[in-house]
Amino acid sequence: MQDKVKSPMSSEFSVIGTRPVRPDGVDKVTGRARFGADLNMSGQLVGAVLRSPHVHARIVKIDTSAARALDGVKAVVTQKDFVSQSNATTNFGEGTLNLMHTVTNVLAGDKVLYHGHAVAAVAATSSAVAKQALKLIKVEYEVLPHVIDVDEAMAPGAPLLFPDMITEGVKPAPTTPSNIAKRIDIVLGDVEKGFNEADVIIERSFKTAPVHQGYIEPHACIATVSEDGQAELFVSTQGHWIVRMLCAKLLGWDINKIKVTAAEIGGGFGGKTVVYLEPLALLLSQKSRRPVKMVMSREDVIRATGPTSGSSMTIKMGATKDGRIVAGEALLKFQAGALPGSPVGPGCMCAFAPYDLANVKVIGYDVVSNRPKVAAYRAPGAPISEYAVESVVDELANKLGIDPIEFRLKNVAKQGTKAAYGPKFGPVGMAEALEAAKASAHWRTPLGKNQGRGIAAGFWFNIGGETTVSLVLNEDGTLGLTAGTPDIGGLRASLCMMASEELKVPLEKIRVQIGDTNQLGYNFLTGGSRSTFSSGMATVEAARDIKKEAVKRAAKLWELPEEAVEWDAASGAVRPAGPNAGKHKPMTLVDIAKIAGKTGGPIVGYSRLNAHGAAPSFACHIADVEIDPETGKASIVRYTAIQDAGRAIHPSYVEGQYQGGVAQGIGWALNEEYIYGTDGKLQNAGFLDYRIPVASDLPMLDTIIIEVPNPVHPYGVRGVGETCIVPPLAAISNAVSMATGVRFAELPMSPPRILAALDKARAEKTAKM
Amino acid sequence: MQDKVKSPMSSEFSVIGTRPVRPDGVDKVTGRARFGADLNMSGQLVGAVLRSPHVHARIVKIDTSAARALDGVKAVVTQKDFVSQSNATTNFGEGTLNLMHTVTNVLAGDKVLYHGHAVAAVAATSSAVAKQALKLIKVEYEVLPHVIDVDEAMAPGAPLLFPDMITEGVKPAPTTPSNIAKRIDIVLGDVEKGFNEADVIIERSFKTAPVHQGYIEPHACIATVSEDGQAELFVSTQGHWIVRMLCAKLLGWDINKIKVTAAEIGGGFGGKTVVYLEPLALLLSQKSRRPVKMVMSREDVIRATGPTSGSSMTIKMGATKDGRIVAGEALLKFQAGALPGSPVGPGCMCAFAPYDLANVKVIGYDVVSNRPKVAAYRAPGAPISEYAVESVVDELANKLGIDPIEFRLKNVAKQGTKAAYGPKFGPVGMAEALEAAKASAHWRTPLGKNQGRGIAAGFWFNIGGETTVSLVLNEDGTLGLTAGTPDIGGLRASLCMMASEELKVPLEKIRVQIGDTNQLGYNFLTGGSRSTFSSGMATVEAARDIKKEAVKRAAKLWELPEEAVEWDAASGAVRPAGPNAGKHKPMTLVDIAKIAGKTGGPIVGYSRLNAHGAAPSFACHIADVEIDPETGKASIVRYTAIQDAGRAIHPSYVEGQYQGGVAQGIGWALNEEYIYGTDGKLQNAGFLDYRIPVASDLPMLDTIIIEVPNPVHPYGVRGVGETCIVPPLAAISNAVSMATGVRFAELPMSPPRILAALDKARAEKTAKM
Repeated sequence: MQDKVKSPMSSEFSVIGTRPVRPDGVDKVTGRARFGADLNMSGQLVGAVLRSPHVHARIVKIDTSAARALDGVKAVVTQKDFVSQSNATTNFGEGTLNLMHTVTNVLAGDKVLYHGHAVAAVAATSSAVAKQALKLIKVEYEVLPHVIDVDEAMAPGAPLLFPDMITEGVKPAPTTPSNIAKRIDIVLGDVEKGFNEADVIIERSFKTAPVHQGYIEPHACIATVSEDGQAELFVSTQGHWIVRMLCAKLLGWDINKIKVTAAEIGGGFGGKTVVYLEPLALLLSQKSRRPVKMVMSREDVIRATGPTSGSSMTIKMGATKDGRIVAGEALLKFQAGALPGSPVGPGCMCAFAPYDLANVKVIGYDVVSNRPKVAAYRAPGAPISEYAVESVVDELANKLGIDPIEFRLKNVAKQGTKAAYGPKFGPVGMAEALEAAKASAHWRTPLGKNQGRGIAAGFWFNIGGETTVSLVLNEDGTLGLTAGTPDIGGLRASLCMMASEELKVPLEKIRVQIGDTNQLGYNFLTGGSRSTFSSGMATVEAARDIKKEAVKRAAKLWELPEEAVEWDAASGAVRPAGPNAGKHKPMTLVDIAKIAGKTGGPIVGYSRLNAHGAAPSFACHIADVEIDPETGKASIVRYTAIQDAGRAIHPSYVEGQYQGGVAQGIGWALNEEYIYGTDGKLQNAGFLDYRIPVASDLPMLDTIIIEVPNPVHPYGVRGVGETCIVPPLAAISNAVSMATGVRFAELPMSPPRILAALDKARAEKTAKM
Repeated sequence: MQDKVKSPMSSEFSVIGTRPVRPDGVDKVTGRARFGADLNMSGQLVGAVLRSPHVHARIVKIDTSAARALDGVKAVVTQKDFVSQSNATTNFGEGTLNLMHTVTNVLAGDKVLYHGHAVAAVAATSSAVAKQALKLIKVEYEVLPHVIDVDEAMAPGAPLLFPDMITEGVKPAPTTPSNIAKRIDIVLGDVEKGFNEADVIIERSFKTAPVHQGYIEPHACIATVSEDGQAELFVSTQGHWIVRMLCAKLLGWDINKIKVTAAEIGGGFGGKTVVYLEPLALLLSQKSRRPVKMVMSREDVIRATGPTSGSSMTIKMGATKDGRIVAGEALLKFQAGALPGSPVGPGCMCAFAPYDLANVKVIGYDVVSNRPKVAAYRAPGAPISEYAVESVVDELANKLGIDPIEFRLKNVAKQGTKAAYGPKFGPVGMAEALEAAKASAHWRTPLGKNQGRGIAAGFWFNIGGETTVSLVLNEDGTLGLTAGTPDIGGLRASLCMMASEELKVPLEKIRVQIGDTNQLGYNFLTGGSRSTFSSGMATVEAARDIKKEAVKRAAKLWELPEEAVEWDAASGAVRPAGPNAGKHKPMTLVDIAKIAGKTGGPIVGYSRLNAHGAAPSFACHIADVEIDPETGKASIVRYTAIQDAGRAIHPSYVEGQYQGGVAQGIGWALNEEYIYGTDGKLQNAGFLDYRIPVASDLPMLDTIIIEVPNPVHPYGVRGVGETCIVPPLAAISNAVSMATGVRFAELPMSPPRILAALDKARAEKTAKM
């Protein structure tokens, strides 16, 4: 792996920027770490879910009596067991969540909306009994016509999922119901005026397939509810406070009744930010008075948990001869799946964000169809819209005969740029990433036969949010750090490193853990690339609490006013300052820990904050592909991901994020798609047929970390986990277009699709000759 | 149960003083609560301990090779596996602890010091293999002479446990080694002068047997240590921070490496404040790389865990004719067991504390002999010394012809009394307890045939210490409370009640848990009757933090200065104050919780304190006994315990403490003793032969709660758990003396001993006739 951290400041630090072994590493490689399905409780039952065999149908009747009567069945639930939620919404980060939609995705109400939609759940003494019980549940369905594709779903006369859905804000104002759940408009400047100034205009339509997050660990949890309603839930999740809130809302329980512990997580990528099994397990446990464990099969995961949206998009951009982009327009139609909630919002926000544009117009639609309800997936929406925009940018550069990096640099977003979706950027690293791409060996290396090279820019805004961290100084001067955001990509290591840097305490003296929901104040989830940023900020604040307290305690011991004592950052010790300097031996945290009791009690740093100032991360990726002209297979032969990390606390985990995002982006670009029959049934619900990249599909993925520190974070951190999945789709599409001489505008660029395009081009060429 | 709470202030409160169901109740009665042996981990091994068959012997050689070679044995440890500790001491509450003694009690070094002393430990795949492995450990012993009794141990020429122990501070200064580990002197005024003023002097010698705490749950734990030294320990303990500290010290590990979770505890009474199995389980797990579970048998518990001291004491007291006690002198010789550390210190402190005396002299000795090392037992030392003093006080009253309550009232300790051991008392309830005894129906009820009635006073000083509590306000206004002192007698209920009272939030909206050592800052243990006092004080402080923060947040929302907003205690809401009163609708915590995010982030109260101001609790008990003249069996026919609680937060649990203390005191007075053969071996290591009182032995134990609030605690709490075991020994002895006409001065007053005294008295009477 390359170790190219471009950091003007890294020499300031002794721990930050190094690559220590992660604190959770040994447990993970020795099998001690407990993932969602690794906890067992005595007397536990197996929970199982009955799923719809139909794509769209009215539920006429559910008869669970035979299942209830089966020996070994301890509880059966249907949607009737949930409290009615009408269309109440609840806060979810900065946004809101429709609770009725959430309930309906957990268990169908009067209709099933997709093949695999959950209808009922049972808890039984064994998996075999549970399966038998599912067979005994008699559901009478009235099958309805269905619609899968987003354009078809928007077409007049399409089967309607919600016959009364007339969405406000859609222009022109609709008079009849449709599958459109939301319309978004973003306008900056005047695109008409912009296009009038253009020397070149390109307009192109794109389609992308929905793709699944592909986390290796399926959804899994175990719940136990005592006779007085005290519940505990152990679950693979990106946000246990979110799970707690959602379960409490859906079940009508007080939040204090539910304690949620986050298991180690075998991947989430946004897909583990909602609930599927959790409210069922709680309800089944409450009814059966036994612990209930539920684990999805891979088929369940693919069939009934959130992929991200597929889309249909049209992009129109205009530029002057000298390479100035004068207008950008986008129409984004995103599949929401069976219930509203596609990431078309962030898709609209991110579409043109890498550029400093005067005239932008984006229209987005959230459209329901008979597919599983989408969930967040790494930079939700951004890879989709930016794929389309970056394809057109590439085509514009080609048409103008300008180097694609130079073309982007001419239009690059920088400090002071006002993004179309609102904010004015602070210091950002888009130009630095483009310059690094230009300077890279990769960019200058000649291509071989049948090869093409593409680049693309990428953007994600990153978020902050509510966060708490506690940092306890133990009696021997060692420390205990508790954070509330599940550790997915090395968070524990990064937090320990920031605490270690701040306090000048060796890393191994800090033990870190992810606290359960009873242990800390509220934490928003690990997502939005917020955890190292927000929990890091909270960790530093807690460490500073400890330093402040250490100063107080030494002052008390020395009988000096607090102002006469200072923390010496170089030695990590408290010492008398000013006229008293040298009067007492400096005290390290080990010394302070010893006097904690007699100077007032235990020393604990505790931060509770709503982290603001998450700064966006920009990237530029370079992809080389080689096309097999006989099979149409595209192979990635070289790949370099260049991205601004703000500050790479632990460079290996930043690189790991970059590589992971690229790997997923490659799958999205080349292979992953949901294959539906004309009957609306999914035909590839398994990892053999839904093909995510495996090691043999990928070259070494090179990375270059750019560091343009985020001025708001004490160590300059930006989120890095999401931007990296944004550029691959366009970079690869641009590379494939270059290699084949055919402009591609549909994902995935699977071998049959590339072969068909090659055949068509060859046929056209032959015809011309 | 009687509900006689004499509280001048209880009408002030809406929750405090009521009797709600405890939050941990359902889990305990349904079997969900997890005690020390209730946690299992996959791959766990069984740990077992080899114990000495000798009472006192040199270990010439230990050969563990055959045990190690046995299939299924994964680890074997001896004392050599612990880091050498020489005679280092460590802080333990306000005192210190000798680490070498602690190691030596966990595993013997060059000598075994008592029958059952641990010598080696193994971890194996099953209990059967572990037992077989113990048999394969070959220990070569050189048997040494032994000594059991405290007077014999102090006699010249006694076998010495530590041949080089010459204790400083013993007067006259010793020149030769002895079994005396410590001497304590407490002097107030001039006893010689006092005795000169006395009209009556009584001097009497007493002996008490060592008695075991008799917790129903034996010691149990499970430990797991990962390959990088991260350890977790789940254990039945009164203080998990203490267990953590001791294990870290004994093993030479950093404290942050060990996370300790306190199981639910089936009784401790002081006996679960030290370590026995815990360091062994950690070491065995580290060596075997597997979780190791260890559970003691009842025989192990009685043979090798701490009872309290037996004693040999002489008390001399003088009084004037009008009932004024003018001098008190005590010589207290306490058995420490095989290693120094009897509770002779608090025994000396408490001996005369119920009285306002001018002249006091107490000498105490801590004496080792070949018995299990003692551990703390409920008001350690106080029942022993106060038994002797209260017996003499009774005899003095009889001799002076003064009613025993009146006699005590004439000399009673009160606000302003300077105790011989140092402090000057604040408001205390000794006189109130005596007055309540005098006024009780019990005191006025005539006695039947063969019956006697005794009273006795009792005192325990109570402690505070380091404490942390966190109190989280959830998004829906419910709360999560985490304390760090294990809940033995209803702590969770009491803490919730104080938080509920403080915040005007219904009890069921507060969920409470005992945090593990990673969750909170340092907490001293549940003991010294500190937990409701200290964790209660911390809870109230945390609740006040929340109120303060609620005011801040409302002020921010309303755009008012903080001073213009106030907490209205009556409604439990925040409202504009002064000129702004009525300008905004008051906000409850439910409202405040909703705006937490946008006004700054999560709201958490967190207190870290070293609780000072624990106030002593005084008691007066009345015991009626009936003697069977043919068998010598003493039956308790009526019992009333009257004690100052300061404030009874949950009166049922205060009464429960009173009743529990009395039950244990009855066992101590009448039945419990360790029976040794001349070979020094314990003959009654089981609950059939070591007889604690069972339900059929006891009448309903009546209680009267006195409330003289502790001015330092926000709700007036005093510790109540220990004072209640102090008076029963003397009250019953005084009653037996009255019923039989024979003054008893040795415990237990078992049937053979009473019968022998009756026979002797009858013989003397016959001889006189």
